[in-house]
Amino acid sequence: MVARRMLRADNLYGHADVRPTEPFPDREAGNQTGEKQMLGLIATMRIQDGKTAEFERVFLDLAAKVRANEPGNLTYQLTRSRAEPNTYKVLEIYSDEAAFKAHGASDHFKAAGPALGSVLAGRPDLEILDGIVGA
Amino acid sequence: MVARRMLRADNLYGHADVRPTEPFPDREAGNQTGEKQMLGLIATMRIQDGKTAEFERVFLDLAAKVRANEPGNLTYQLTRSRAEPNTYKVLEIYSDEAAFKAHGASDHFKAAGPALGSVLAGRPDLEILDGIVGA
Repeated sequence: MVARRMLRADNLYGHADVRPTEPFPDREAGNQTGEKQMLGLIATMRIQDGKTAEFERVFLDLAAKVRANEPGNLTYQLTRSRAEPNTYKVLEIYSDEAAFKAHGASDHFKAAGPALGSVLAGRPDLEILDGIVGA
Repeated sequence: MVARRMLRADNLYGHADVRPTEPFPDREAGNQTGEKQMLGLIATMRIQDGKTAEFERVFLDLAAKVRANEPGNLTYQLTRSRAEPNTYKVLEIYSDEAAFKAHGASDHFKAAGPALGSVLAGRPDLEILDGIVGA
């Protein structure tokens, strides 16, 4: 069941899961701007032993498509942990909620799901963050 | 002692600490390119209660100076945790090691140290990452 879930791109990155279920906490800084809130995402992926080269090939192809087709994606950088060589973190920044949703719904993102799912050692860990910008 | 250390910008971000002390692990993907290796950094900062607005003001001023003065800095985005409203993460990308070192050595970075140190609830947590780019 886990393997089958991993093959669904919308579930691979679990976009349905990362929306907050609680209201936003009160913000002293009052930086919230509703729909135009910039979003950051740190996606942590652990890769099966011996599969990191394949993972990098597949992910870099996806990243090129994201940059070419998603004007609302501001950063989409693959990085690799120095402490855990099988662990990768993608640093992602989106101009707003709509751009974030468009990424998860894109054909190129969904198409990468099976190849990524086949090399992942487990479900990706996603941390969604609110972008803080000047007034 | 901790408070005094927090006031030293070079120690605030602990650039001296984040260089690996062990050789890089073998890379199946062979993505290492030595001095031209792109670097990512996730800097996690916990802010004292009631000080987040001041922190954001100081940090956004620093971020503007980084973008204006560091051509080798590719991303420098302040974000805020949804789970822990006093916790901020800065998503940083540098073109190479030299750009990363230039950031830590810059006058604007060092000048922000005292103001940042005065609102931080503890030492920042820094995770340095190797950027993975296409061949």
